[in-house]
Amino acid sequence: MIVIKLGGAVGIDYASCCKNISYLVKEGFKVVVVHGGSDIANNLGEQLGVPPVYITSTSGVTSRYTNSDSLDILNLAMKGRLNPLIVEQLLKYEVKAIGLSGIDGMLIQAQKKSAIKAVFNGKTQIIRDDLTGKITKINSELITMLLDLGYIPVISPPAYDPNYGAINVDADRTAAAIAQAINAECLLLMSNIPGLMTDCNDVESIIHYFTHHDIEKNMKYAKGRMKLKLIASAEAFLNQHLKKVIIADGRQYDAIQKALNGQGTIIERAVEKETRIYEQ
Amino acid sequence: MIVIKLGGAVGIDYASCCKNISYLVKEGFKVVVVHGGSDIANNLGEQLGVPPVYITSTSGVTSRYTNSDSLDILNLAMKGRLNPLIVEQLLKYEVKAIGLSGIDGMLIQAQKKSAIKAVFNGKTQIIRDDLTGKITKINSELITMLLDLGYIPVISPPAYDPNYGAINVDADRTAAAIAQAINAECLLLMSNIPGLMTDCNDVESIIHYFTHHDIEKNMKYAKGRMKLKLIASAEAFLNQHLKKVIIADGRQYDAIQKALNGQGTIIERAVEKETRIYEQ
Repeated sequence: MIVIKLGGAVGIDYASCCKNISYLVKEGFKVVVVHGGSDIANNLGEQLGVPPVYITSTSGVTSRYTNSDSLDILNLAMKGRLNPLIVEQLLKYEVKAIGLSGIDGMLIQAQKKSAIKAVFNGKTQIIRDDLTGKITKINSELITMLLDLGYIPVISPPAYDPNYGAINVDADRTAAAIAQAINAECLLLMSNIPGLMTDCNDVESIIHYFTHHDIEKNMKYAKGRMKLKLIASAEAFLNQHLKKVIIADGRQYDAIQKALNGQGTIIERAVEKETRIYEQ
Repeated sequence: MIVIKLGGAVGIDYASCCKNISYLVKEGFKVVVVHGGSDIANNLGEQLGVPPVYITSTSGVTSRYTNSDSLDILNLAMKGRLNPLIVEQLLKYEVKAIGLSGIDGMLIQAQKKSAIKAVFNGKTQIIRDDLTGKITKINSELITMLLDLGYIPVISPPAYDPNYGAINVDADRTAAAIAQAINAECLLLMSNIPGLMTDCNDVESIIHYFTHHDIEKNMKYAKGRMKLKLIASAEAFLNQHLKKVIIADGRQYDAIQKALNGQGTIIERAVEKETRIYEQ
């Protein structure tokens, strides 16, 4: 089982990614696709008079400030535009794709954050009305049942908080939570950067490989949204079934195939001492 | 099993309809919700520079002219805005709703119309690039499997044509096709009119009851979109399990409950002669 997260940034080659996913499905892999929709949301938001607003937590993680208007924009972008695009592409490659958001069948349950200390409009503030949350539960029964019937779920935020309704959650962490919940062996995070780089202005500085023990150590190189990708990776490794996370560039042709063949940043589960002794 | 179609016109009380649906589900009914999204699509289309264009077939049926831009608007409206709204409402009433469009899991297969003779810009023309079609197949296995697991599918167009991709289909006929495919006993068409009226300007002229044999006879009273509701009704009765179609006003509080208690226009399956003899 593989969970593949397709980013919502400009330039992601969805058609080629879907073609690659169809190969994996034909080879017998069970694939779950997770996607965001940031770029489309920003464009639609500008057009509809709800431009995006970002906040930066005191720990330096940037996220989208979400009220009911911007949640509507996210739904329009993710469920209304990008999801049908991905599902239709996959259907064209004879993959039985099925689009779902986190509220459908309470696929992703989350808890709204009560208050966030964040930099907003240049000032550190306590923000209480932000409709974002932390994932608490994945409806893995629904996902595995669909996979068993040959369907490929294509999943996006928002999630569902039984007390607040739909709330936004991070798509990378959604992918990680799903990987964790369904015992996936591999998590691919396809975005608009080649991988984790020690100097984010120098593609050559990409770190090709480290083990999950070194995620924390490499966090210092992560800028902006890369921080969340590393946090998501660490969360995914909490399930012992997960063997590797690949962070790779989704903007190129055959991006998924290239990522599975070694491109990007590969984070592998470190072989534990006990296992090695046992294997000797 | 009941199929309930919630129209996309102005004023439909979705919150109250969802509450009524939750009662039905708690009473043990298996409910499939189908919805359109015309009003939201019109508004979003105006805001995004893709205003709606309607064409009238030579037989007098008016429908939305659909190209790839307007199909995007329909996706935004139906899948991106109205579907999450209905799903979230149902979840609040503890109904395990799951939103799907006709392309998801090839739920609704259709065939694009090759050419339509229609009045367009005031002239009778042959229109070939209209992305609309006729429903050919419903993935009833997916629907009944979800129902058996306690999920309530909330379904909207577009449908999927294996040769053309996503195409628009009429939501009333989608509801009828689903009712037919899953052997539903009752089809409710909730819209912004009280029912079929002999004089569409006089609410008092509503026809409260007729049998399915008289659908054709009453077609002469149907104006505009009511024609399609009667055509859809006739299609639904092709399955012998269907006992009644109710066409009722969804703009009032407790609309579904009122419709099931006799409001609106009720079309019932006529008791066949053979059956009566047998029953004697």
